[in-house]
Amino acid sequence: MIGSLYAAHLSRVADVWVLTRRSEHARALEANGLRVSGRADFSGSVRATDDPDAIPAFDVAIVATKGTALEAAATALEGRFADATIVTVQNGLGAERIVRSHGDWPIVSGVTFMSGTRHDDTHVEYVLDTETWLGPYNGTDFDTVEELAALIERAGLKARAFPDLRPAQWSKLIFNATVNAVAALTGLPHDAHFAAEEADSDLGHLVHALMDEGKSVAAAAGVGLHEDPWEMNVLATRRGSAHYPSMLEDVEARRPTEIELITGALVREAEHVGVPVPLHTALYRLIKAKEDSYRESKGRNG
Amino acid sequence: MIGSLYAAHLSRVADVWVLTRRSEHARALEANGLRVSGRADFSGSVRATDDPDAIPAFDVAIVATKGTALEAAATALEGRFADATIVTVQNGLGAERIVRSHGDWPIVSGVTFMSGTRHDDTHVEYVLDTETWLGPYNGTDFDTVEELAALIERAGLKARAFPDLRPAQWSKLIFNATVNAVAALTGLPHDAHFAAEEADSDLGHLVHALMDEGKSVAAAAGVGLHEDPWEMNVLATRRGSAHYPSMLEDVEARRPTEIELITGALVREAEHVGVPVPLHTALYRLIKAKEDSYRESKGRNG
Repeated sequence: MIGSLYAAHLSRVADVWVLTRRSEHARALEANGLRVSGRADFSGSVRATDDPDAIPAFDVAIVATKGTALEAAATALEGRFADATIVTVQNGLGAERIVRSHGDWPIVSGVTFMSGTRHDDTHVEYVLDTETWLGPYNGTDFDTVEELAALIERAGLKARAFPDLRPAQWSKLIFNATVNAVAALTGLPHDAHFAAEEADSDLGHLVHALMDEGKSVAAAAGVGLHEDPWEMNVLATRRGSAHYPSMLEDVEARRPTEIELITGALVREAEHVGVPVPLHTALYRLIKAKEDSYRESKGRNG
Repeated sequence: MIGSLYAAHLSRVADVWVLTRRSEHARALEANGLRVSGRADFSGSVRATDDPDAIPAFDVAIVATKGTALEAAATALEGRFADATIVTVQNGLGAERIVRSHGDWPIVSGVTFMSGTRHDDTHVEYVLDTETWLGPYNGTDFDTVEELAALIERAGLKARAFPDLRPAQWSKLIFNATVNAVAALTGLPHDAHFAAEEADSDLGHLVHALMDEGKSVAAAAGVGLHEDPWEMNVLATRRGSAHYPSMLEDVEARRPTEIELITGALVREAEHVGVPVPLHTALYRLIKAKEDSYRESKGRNG
């Protein structure tokens, strides 16, 4: 969905190839192009294939798979495209490391706040027209990052280049680890419950405590946050229409979640810097168990 | 379901009236009696009504509603049956206090480990033939408790009288607060996941920590436990067929849960004795939020 938004927009200012997982998807894109509705309204013309060897050399690849499919996507790039820069935009932490383990391309770290709805293989609705933030990973030239941000802006999306993306990455990590896991466990979209702190039983107390745990880890890791995740939460829940976090959609569809790259990454960083995060650890284990529940058959005995 | 097991068995050794919520249920019981299958196999003959004024004076009432229906059931008894003894068998803590607020009958505290499956209004399957434990509440004569246990035994069920039920009540409270909430949040029946403590992500670590929080509260409240809830958990998960905790059935059917009488009671006792229970408090808020999610309409935006 995020990948479709980048591909369609970038096709207006650059030659775009889409590497798909399914061959029907590639054929549909070649035949029909890629339609964007919602915040924008146009059809982009893209080339598409499910075979990485069919793609000519390129300058930049945005790897926009879900975290759960990243390992497979990085494997498809391995040994190819030596002159390319790779951009990761997965939720959580650690996507760059997974890509790096498959090749030594320059890597640009990304976090994106855009959202959309995938209607079918060739139609995506652009819902939230918020920014993509980019930063250099492990020595990538900052000029490269700035050029990339400028390209994305020319394509009609919003982007910003940061010399150090970690403050933004960590703000979003803490926000996502909290909001995604709580939504997936409660069945609530990201709505006013997440900011409610009146009654003792109110969910906002738990959300706040999870944000505080995350902030302690960032502080111990020496990362100053770009935005306060609790304030991001309060603002987002006031926005009106409640956002449906992807992890909630995943558990409702009984799909694997991105828990390892999000809460799992936070819990491991916490252990690394010696900060206890009992609540995130609890949520991590609950979501892992929920994934295991997909495989249970239901034999009830009252 | 528990009420049907008591009513059918007791009908073999006593005159039994069943007070139902629905009038069709009462008519079906009057017409067809109450069939038990599974661990026992017989039909009991009972009288039944949905009108408390239609029931003649009696010696003992077992109030076997779910915790969520207890307030309504106790209200139906209010101002009636001055000579009766009332038995509560709800999960959690505090059922006696709710009954007491509606009248000054002698009260017997009960916890039951029986389980069954309700097939229809007049057929219940007896699944786990484990004991009902009884104890005096606030000065009720212990002879009354012993007579009641003997009556239940003569009826073909298992029962034990305890001079002080609190050690058993608290063991079951801690067990239930943990197992019910974790099952309801993960979708897992009470199976081997609950005792697994090998990998860091294993659910057993969380279950163990929840049991330990509960034990700290019991210790601070001066209650020695009858059984160690962690050992109850390990034994139960080795029993073979996984038990489906009632709170998991409740959330799957989008019904109100017994969270207030179980985890809510534990959290309030913890606050009363000044023992922090951050994990139970987190689960309490997650389940409350899950109940709120039943009322949400689903408008998704990716």
